[in-house]
Amino acid sequence: MNSTTPLTVGEHPHASFPEGVELDCGVTLAPVDIAYCTYGQLSANKDNAILICHAFTGDQYVAETHPLTGKPGWWERMVGPGKPIDTNRFFVICSNVLGGCMGSTGPRSPRTDGQEAPGELWGTAFPPITIRDMVRAQHKLVRSLGIERLFAVVGGSMGGMQVLEWAVTYPQMMRAVMPIATAPFHSAQNIAFNEVGRQAIIADPDWRGGRYWEAGVVPARGLAVARMMAHITYLSEEVLTRKFGRRMRRGPVGGQGPEGPVSTFGDIFEVESYLRYQGSSFVRRFDANSYLSITRAMDWFDIAADHDGDLTPAFAGTAVRFCVVSFSSDWLFPTSAARTLARALNRAAANVSFVEIETDKGHDAFLLEEPDFDRTVRGFLCGVAEHAGLF
Amino acid sequence: MNSTTPLTVGEHPHASFPEGVELDCGVTLAPVDIAYCTYGQLSANKDNAILICHAFTGDQYVAETHPLTGKPGWWERMVGPGKPIDTNRFFVICSNVLGGCMGSTGPRSPRTDGQEAPGELWGTAFPPITIRDMVRAQHKLVRSLGIERLFAVVGGSMGGMQVLEWAVTYPQMMRAVMPIATAPFHSAQNIAFNEVGRQAIIADPDWRGGRYWEAGVVPARGLAVARMMAHITYLSEEVLTRKFGRRMRRGPVGGQGPEGPVSTFGDIFEVESYLRYQGSSFVRRFDANSYLSITRAMDWFDIAADHDGDLTPAFAGTAVRFCVVSFSSDWLFPTSAARTLARALNRAAANVSFVEIETDKGHDAFLLEEPDFDRTVRGFLCGVAEHAGLF
Repeated sequence: MNSTTPLTVGEHPHASFPEGVELDCGVTLAPVDIAYCTYGQLSANKDNAILICHAFTGDQYVAETHPLTGKPGWWERMVGPGKPIDTNRFFVICSNVLGGCMGSTGPRSPRTDGQEAPGELWGTAFPPITIRDMVRAQHKLVRSLGIERLFAVVGGSMGGMQVLEWAVTYPQMMRAVMPIATAPFHSAQNIAFNEVGRQAIIADPDWRGGRYWEAGVVPARGLAVARMMAHITYLSEEVLTRKFGRRMRRGPVGGQGPEGPVSTFGDIFEVESYLRYQGSSFVRRFDANSYLSITRAMDWFDIAADHDGDLTPAFAGTAVRFCVVSFSSDWLFPTSAARTLARALNRAAANVSFVEIETDKGHDAFLLEEPDFDRTVRGFLCGVAEHAGLF
Repeated sequence: MNSTTPLTVGEHPHASFPEGVELDCGVTLAPVDIAYCTYGQLSANKDNAILICHAFTGDQYVAETHPLTGKPGWWERMVGPGKPIDTNRFFVICSNVLGGCMGSTGPRSPRTDGQEAPGELWGTAFPPITIRDMVRAQHKLVRSLGIERLFAVVGGSMGGMQVLEWAVTYPQMMRAVMPIATAPFHSAQNIAFNEVGRQAIIADPDWRGGRYWEAGVVPARGLAVARMMAHITYLSEEVLTRKFGRRMRRGPVGGQGPEGPVSTFGDIFEVESYLRYQGSSFVRRFDANSYLSITRAMDWFDIAADHDGDLTPAFAGTAVRFCVVSFSSDWLFPTSAARTLARALNRAAANVSFVEIETDKGHDAFLLEEPDFDRTVRGFLCGVAEHAGLF
C-alpha cells in the first residue's frame, strides 16, 4: 500500500481566477482554478443553465466517462439528452468544488500564500474552507460563462448543502433549486462520523503530517478505512441485508475455505469484501488532504448560524422555487432534516414542494435507479420552465 | 502513542481448566483460564445464582471498582444490595469472555498449541472463537462452582447473544433468561461496522501482524479509531444532538480560538473531543487482538444457522422463561430484531415477555439510568423467583 497511487491531477478543463476568492476565514485564496464540465448548449438568452453541485467525493464528471476510473459519469442516468435533466433543453454546468482534487484549487495545488518553499503544495496549510466558499467560487465560474441568472441549482448530499447556500447567498441568481438528500446543518452524528474518518487518515503514518507527496506515498490505509466507514452510512440497513445479508465467501467457522481453514482474519462475509473494495478503489481517485478539508467544510455548514439558530430568516422574501427531496431510508440525511428545512421555507412563505421518495436504498438512493425520483426531477424542472414560459 | 500502555493482565481471580474447551472450529483450546467475579452468597440449595454476560468491551468487574481504570463497575447501578439484581437475594457471577483481555484465556495468553516459541503469546494464532465457545467456557465455570442449574442468565448486547446461546445450548441449565438490546443474529450492517474497526487496527503499523507485544507497542491509533466509530453506533442521533449538538470548543471559522485561528485540524466541535477521549481511554484497557477475535465471534453469531435459517426450532420445547428487552432508539440492535426473536419464541410456544423501553439514549441505554428498565429487570426476576417459590 506504500506505492504512489495514480493521483495525477492532469489537465482538467478549468477556468482561472487570478484575483482568487475571499474566504469565510478572512483569507483571500489566490489564484483559484475551478475545473468544470458542461453539457448541452447555452441558449441565446442564457436562461437555460442548470448548475449541478456534486457530493463530497463526487466531481465534475457528471455525464461522461471519468478520466481516472474509466467509469460512467456519476449522474449519467439523470443528465443527458432526453434524461430527466435534459441536455437537449438545458445547459448543464458542474464544477469540482474548491478544496477538491480533480483540478480545482485544493490542498494538492501549489501553495501561494507567500510562505511557500519552491514546489511546495498547500497540504495542511490550505486555508479552512466552507460550503459558502465553494459556492463563491462557483458563482465566479457561472459569471465568467456570461450567465446572469441560472435556471436552477441542483445537488444531493453535500451538493444539496451548496444548493441551499446558493439560495441564501445569491437568491437573485436562480429561478429554482433542488436540495436533495441533504440538511440545513450538519448534525452531531454527521460530525462524529466525519471526525472518525479524519482520525483514520491522520493516524496513518503515511499521511506524514499532510506532506505525503514529498515522500511519494499516500495514506492509503487510513483513507480506505475512512471510506469504508463512510460507505456504511450511505447505505441503509435494509439494502445491506438485501444485497449481502450474512452470505459468506468462505464456509462457517470450523469449515475449510478455499484458502484453508476459516480464521479470524481475511474476509469471511461478502459485505466485508464489498467494503474493502470500496475502500481500496477510492484511494486511487481521491486525495487525503481534500478529504480532511471538505469534511470540515461540511461540519461547519449551518444555514441558521447567521440568524441566531433560526432557519426561517435565512430564506425571508425569497422568490426562488424550492423542491426539497428526501429518501425514506436515508439515515445520514434523514427525512426529518428535510422536513425541518421545508417547514422553515413555508414559514418564510417560500414557494416550496417537499417530496419523500420511498426506497430501501438509503442515502445513496439519489445516485441510483429510482423512477419516482426521476419523475420528480423531470416534472419539477419542466414545471418551472413552463411557468417561466421558457419552452 | 508509541509507548507501551499499561495493559498488564495482572492476577485477576480465575478458575483454571487444564482440559480446556472444545471449540466450534474443531480445535481443543487447552488450558483455559476463566477470570470471574461474584457478588452475594450462593444459597444452600444453590438455586439463586444469576450469570451476567458482559458486552463486547465489558468485563467481569460488574459491581466493583475496575482494577485498571479505577472507575465504578459497569453495572453497579443494576447489581448490588437492594439493586434490581439484588445481591442480598441472588448470587451473581460474571466472567470475562473467552478471547477477552481481563484474565480469561485470549490472544494475549501464552500460546499452547505445541507450535509456540519460548514466551510466545497466541496473537493471531489464537483459534477463531464463537459466542457458543464463550458460553461453553462459562458453563464449565458454573459447574465448577457446584451449580447444577442457574436461576437466570442476563446480559445486554453481545452479552445478550451469550444469553440466547445459553438458552439454546443448555436449556435445562436455567429458569429464566433476559436477552437485552441484542439480536438473534449479527446483521450485515453490524458486520460492516465491525469490519471497519478491524481494518483500522490491522492498518496500524504498530499492530505488526498481531505481534505488537514483541516490540513493546500497541496499535493505539488504530484501536482508538475503531473505538470512536463503534462508540457512535452505541448512541442515538437524538442523544448526540441533546448532549453535544453543534457546540464548538473554538469559535467559528474565521474566528480566533484560544490556540490561535481556527483551522481544519484540531477538535472544533465538542462531539469530536468526546469521541477522541473515548478512543484514547479505551486503548489503555483493551487489547487489539481481543478486539479482532471478539468482533469476529459476534459476526458469526446466528442462532438460526443450525436450523436452515429458521429461528423457531432453536427454541422448540424450551421450558425457559424469556424476557426480551429492547430500547426504542437503539439502531445497532433495533427493536425490530428483538421482535423477530420474540415472534420466534412465541411460535415455539415459549414463555416470553417482550418489553420495549422508550428512551433517546440508543444502544447504551442498557448501561444508563432508565427507571423503566430497572423496574423491568427487578420485576421479572422477582416474578420468576415467586413463581418458583424461592423467596
